[in-house]
Amino acid sequence: MINLKDTIVAISTAQGAGAIAVIRLTGPDSITICDKVFQSIRHGKKLIDQAAHTVHFGSLMDGDKELDEVLVSIFKAPHSFTGEDTVEVSCHGAPFIQQKVLELFIQNGAQLAAPGEFTQRAFLNGKMDLSQAEAVADLIASKSEAARRVALQQMKGGFSNELVHLRERLLNFISLVELELDFSEEDVEFADRAQLIALVDEVEQLLTKLINSFSLGNAIKNGIPVAIVGHTNAGKSTLLNTILQEDRAIVSDIHGTTRDAIEDTLNIKGITFRFIDTAGIRKTTDAIENIGINRTYSKMGSASIVILMLDINDPDPKIHEAITEVKGKMNPDQKLVVAINKIDLIDSGETNARFTPEKFPELSDNDAIVPLSAKKQTGVDNLLNELIDTVNLQAVDNDEVIVTNARHYEALQRSHESIRRVLEGLHSGLSGDFVAQDIREVLYFLGQITGGEIQTDEVLGNIFKNFCIGK
Amino acid sequence: MINLKDTIVAISTAQGAGAIAVIRLTGPDSITICDKVFQSIRHGKKLIDQAAHTVHFGSLMDGDKELDEVLVSIFKAPHSFTGEDTVEVSCHGAPFIQQKVLELFIQNGAQLAAPGEFTQRAFLNGKMDLSQAEAVADLIASKSEAARRVALQQMKGGFSNELVHLRERLLNFISLVELELDFSEEDVEFADRAQLIALVDEVEQLLTKLINSFSLGNAIKNGIPVAIVGHTNAGKSTLLNTILQEDRAIVSDIHGTTRDAIEDTLNIKGITFRFIDTAGIRKTTDAIENIGINRTYSKMGSASIVILMLDINDPDPKIHEAITEVKGKMNPDQKLVVAINKIDLIDSGETNARFTPEKFPELSDNDAIVPLSAKKQTGVDNLLNELIDTVNLQAVDNDEVIVTNARHYEALQRSHESIRRVLEGLHSGLSGDFVAQDIREVLYFLGQITGGEIQTDEVLGNIFKNFCIGK
Repeated sequence: MINLKDTIVAISTAQGAGAIAVIRLTGPDSITICDKVFQSIRHGKKLIDQAAHTVHFGSLMDGDKELDEVLVSIFKAPHSFTGEDTVEVSCHGAPFIQQKVLELFIQNGAQLAAPGEFTQRAFLNGKMDLSQAEAVADLIASKSEAARRVALQQMKGGFSNELVHLRERLLNFISLVELELDFSEEDVEFADRAQLIALVDEVEQLLTKLINSFSLGNAIKNGIPVAIVGHTNAGKSTLLNTILQEDRAIVSDIHGTTRDAIEDTLNIKGITFRFIDTAGIRKTTDAIENIGINRTYSKMGSASIVILMLDINDPDPKIHEAITEVKGKMNPDQKLVVAINKIDLIDSGETNARFTPEKFPELSDNDAIVPLSAKKQTGVDNLLNELIDTVNLQAVDNDEVIVTNARHYEALQRSHESIRRVLEGLHSGLSGDFVAQDIREVLYFLGQITGGEIQTDEVLGNIFKNFCIGK
Repeated sequence: MINLKDTIVAISTAQGAGAIAVIRLTGPDSITICDKVFQSIRHGKKLIDQAAHTVHFGSLMDGDKELDEVLVSIFKAPHSFTGEDTVEVSCHGAPFIQQKVLELFIQNGAQLAAPGEFTQRAFLNGKMDLSQAEAVADLIASKSEAARRVALQQMKGGFSNELVHLRERLLNFISLVELELDFSEEDVEFADRAQLIALVDEVEQLLTKLINSFSLGNAIKNGIPVAIVGHTNAGKSTLLNTILQEDRAIVSDIHGTTRDAIEDTLNIKGITFRFIDTAGIRKTTDAIENIGINRTYSKMGSASIVILMLDINDPDPKIHEAITEVKGKMNPDQKLVVAINKIDLIDSGETNARFTPEKFPELSDNDAIVPLSAKKQTGVDNLLNELIDTVNLQAVDNDEVIVTNARHYEALQRSHESIRRVLEGLHSGLSGDFVAQDIREVLYFLGQITGGEIQTDEVLGNIFKNFCIGK
């Protein structure tokens, strides 16, 4: 459990050797602890006497031995990330020195920070709500433009504002219902039922929109898994290499070369796609290869998009058979992109006539068929466009609120269940106090997202334990 | 070639993901470039108008899009590490964000910094001499307490002061000799020859001391290589595991288990020892094992200390034979420590009587014989003491000047050759102008260390190319 009276310390920059490293202290004694070991180049200068937001050059002293030359920045409560007095020490970046500096501060009264403790303190000190604190971790972990953008927007309170908005409407609703309850003896209806239903309907729609944004949010945060499947030797590995612009998978002309699933990622327009190359799916008696094929279908199940790679030299019945087989193993939410490879070997007019969507009724509207040459790198852009089309980039561009956090998603689902009960209650003429009870439940679950409702140490511990140390 | 009119930028913290990262700019436009993309939380606040050594919170803007929330510290020439206007931007530590911030500054007019360019600029701007600049790299690379301490002392000018001291003496000498030359017609001897010889003698001794310190300096900087050799199954791997306190080498009871040389490091009293476990040295017909044994002798050649591991159960003649064989492959500079293992199996009185140094005349004074039990971890401390005894810890503790840099070592050797010629010249009554010429050579080579003499871009390039980026 966090004791805000403690002063904590951690290395805040990446592990390993760098030119410089930053060790950060926060808490009531951070400046006085630093004063114990810091010797300014100006004799007798004390950090405690200095203005906030100033930087000071000097040496860290371990007794009478100089440990390192450092820059020290000081921040005073409440004008810091944590809302507490904070010191940032910039030292030389040898891991050995970083460790020594950390130990020096611990010897002088600082506690080693728990993962995410700086951010948790920012939350506990009211500098940000819980969803904003979680966005700090997302921002630090962001690997793509969209992930960065959504996390930054959430950190700055975009999602929180949306929730405040919802909360206001619900409180407005509750006050109307409760006013009615106060006058229940008199059988007055202050709240027009139709108006109440419209209000709750609107809240329900907003919640639904947020809940639906999670599939996009999850794709943005964790990347979109794309499985590449197909007959052996259809050119799956070549396609993957072309997409990733490097020789990651071994390419050969021997059937069944790629036995292991190789996973790699690519950013397209700020979205991360995780490509999964798989073993071929031809019938085989080779035991190891059979394991690979089973793994192919298993990996395919976890993909959002399946690229089925086929050879243009295959006759139409074989192509239709392959599509039908793969579609049979897919669920309706997955998109199938049929890549017809090796078009460089065939006349382009013939290809275009042969692979029109209407000739493949087994494909759904969402699916696509793309003739290409992985080797000559023609048509590959069309394939990538089919991938990026699955993402609602507009929502990202418009800075719409996108839910990326599974905990928030769960809380929103629970709020939604409660709001559904409110709606049913209103329609069936349930009495106001029962309706108000359900509305309070909605507020309770929404409050869990921002942390406004009472949070147990266990809940907070679970949220912050996956943070990195030093933030 | 470095153009000091450019403003440069680099990520200065360690590669990879951290809580925060620091991107640093230096050069005449560093503050104005940062002003182009920085938006303070206080509307309209410009960095260029702010006091030096202050920190500012706000956002980095890529056009109208917010890239990240950052802290910006500003430093003004000449009060910065480089002596130039400098800005340090502390952003969220995602590698993706670090890269974006770097690109943003490059798009706005900064050049990507070359390795070590910040330090090279500090040198070019007269903030430090060349040996101090090199010590910055050593400090960042330091992996042990002694390495850190020696590098910090050198960075703060310890070595430079010693060289200034030498230089003053030599200049004093030269002025005396040259005064004599001015009056050469009159055959006056202003400089008492005996006094001159005493002065040059003193300089020669100082140079010799510095040159000799390099073997310690090199050991401190690069660690001391220790080869562990011995009969198969004598317990070499067990000893290594005991020393390193972990199961790094595979230990088994089968003779000849350890075929590959495993290298690991251990810090003892601030000094790094690099342990090299080797294949056994018994005679064998196994081809692979023979390669291992040859490698053993080859590795032994590069070690400063050889630990010969023998089994106390072996009869005395076998033990003497092994010591003689290994001593025969060693050079006089190497120290041999004979570790007699498995003393836990034998009565201790008997052991002590059997392994006194005088019973092993084949060992030199510097060598040692240490009975121990690797398995029971008894006597291992005595072994470690024999290792640390090879290091002149006193010199480190007294902050004596210790040469750690091969370039300095080479320049000192050349200075030394020249000073020897000066001495010979004085003894053989060489004329003053020839002596003065040799003295100028000494000064030239010493000047190469501090960079006082003209340095070509190529020389500087070679020195700084191995620096890390961002320092």
